[in-house]
Amino acid sequence: MKAAFVIFDGMTALDFIGFYDPVTRLKSMSIIPDFEWKLCSATRKVADDRGLRVGPDVANEPLAGYDLVFVPGGWSTRDLQRDAKFIGWLKTAATVPLKISVCTGALLLGAAGFLEGRRATTHPGAYKELMPYCRDVVRQRIVDEGDIVTAGGVAASIDLGLHIVQRLSGAGARERVARQMDYPYRPG
Amino acid sequence: MKAAFVIFDGMTALDFIGFYDPVTRLKSMSIIPDFEWKLCSATRKVADDRGLRVGPDVANEPLAGYDLVFVPGGWSTRDLQRDAKFIGWLKTAATVPLKISVCTGALLLGAAGFLEGRRATTHPGAYKELMPYCRDVVRQRIVDEGDIVTAGGVAASIDLGLHIVQRLSGAGARERVARQMDYPYRPG
Repeated sequence: MKAAFVIFDGMTALDFIGFYDPVTRLKSMSIIPDFEWKLCSATRKVADDRGLRVGPDVANEPLAGYDLVFVPGGWSTRDLQRDAKFIGWLKTAATVPLKISVCTGALLLGAAGFLEGRRATTHPGAYKELMPYCRDVVRQRIVDEGDIVTAGGVAASIDLGLHIVQRLSGAGARERVARQMDYPYRPG
Repeated sequence: MKAAFVIFDGMTALDFIGFYDPVTRLKSMSIIPDFEWKLCSATRKVADDRGLRVGPDVANEPLAGYDLVFVPGGWSTRDLQRDAKFIGWLKTAATVPLKISVCTGALLLGAAGFLEGRRATTHPGAYKELMPYCRDVVRQRIVDEGDIVTAGGVAASIDLGLHIVQRLSGAGARERVARQMDYPYRPG
C-alpha cells in the first residue's frame, strides 16, 4: 500500500497535514505495517501559502504506480488549474485507483479530468468554481464516489483522513487513530 | 505582535500546523495586519516524527523578544525534556509574556520550569509524565492560566489556535477564522 501526497507552492499546510496525520498512523500505529508514502511535487522547492518550507521526497516523477493519490488545496490552485505543465504531471495519476482531494484540491482533480460525470465537493467558498469540472457539486463534508473522494475546506482534511483510515482498515482502526489524535469530533 | 513557533526533530506535524493555521490567519485575513512569526528551532534541520522535512526560519537564536512562543509535542519530547542544550535554549523564552503548548509540548515547557505552581494539561497518555512539572494536571482540552496556555493531544491544536485567536482578537474573529477553515467544531 503506497500513497502519494501531492504538495505544491501555495498549498494550505493544514489541508495536507490534517490528512497526512491520521493516514500515516496506519504505519506508525502498525495498522498496515507495510503502508508507505512519498511527498510528491512538480518542483524541487515547495512552500505553503504563508511561507512554510516543506521538503518533497520526489520532484517531477510520474504518479502512476501508487495505490492512492491525495491533493490538498490552497489559493494557488486558481492558477495551477490552468497550468498545463502542472496538470500534465497530475494526469500521470490517471491509473491510480483511489484519488482524493480536500478543499480546492478538487479544482486540480477537476482540471485533470478526474471528476467528469462525478459528484464532488470543495471549500464552501469554491462551489461555483468546481461546477464546470463535475456532474454535481455536493454541499457535504465528504463525498465518497468509490475511486474518487473529495472533502470540504481546510480542516475537513482530518475528517477525510479518518474516513480513509476507516475505508482501508475498518471502524475500530478509525476509533483507535482518532483517540490517539485526541480528536473527539465527527461530521454530523 | 510577533510569534515564535518552536519546531524540533520528532515533533508531530499536526500539533504544529493545527495551531499555525488559525493563528497565522490573523495576518492572512488582515485581522492583525502586522502579525509576524518565525519558525524557530535549536538545529538547522528539522523533520517530524514520520520523516517530513520542515525548514526553520532561524536556528539556535534566543527566543526572548517574541510576544508569544508556541511549543508542539511529539515522541521526541521524552528525550528533549532531559536534553540540557535544548531546554537551555527553550529557557531563553522565560520573559515571553505568553507561552503556549499542545500535547507533550507541555513536558518541554515543564522541563524549562515554566509550569511551576501552575495548572496544565497534555496528551491524555502523558498526564503522569506531566505531574512532576506543575501543580495540577487538569483533564481538560485547554487550560488557560493567563500567561501559560496548555492543551490536550495532537488535534487539540486547532481548538487551541482558535482559542488564542479569540483571546487576541475577540469572538467575532474566532468565528470568521473557523468558518474560513471550514471547522464546525468546538470543545464541549
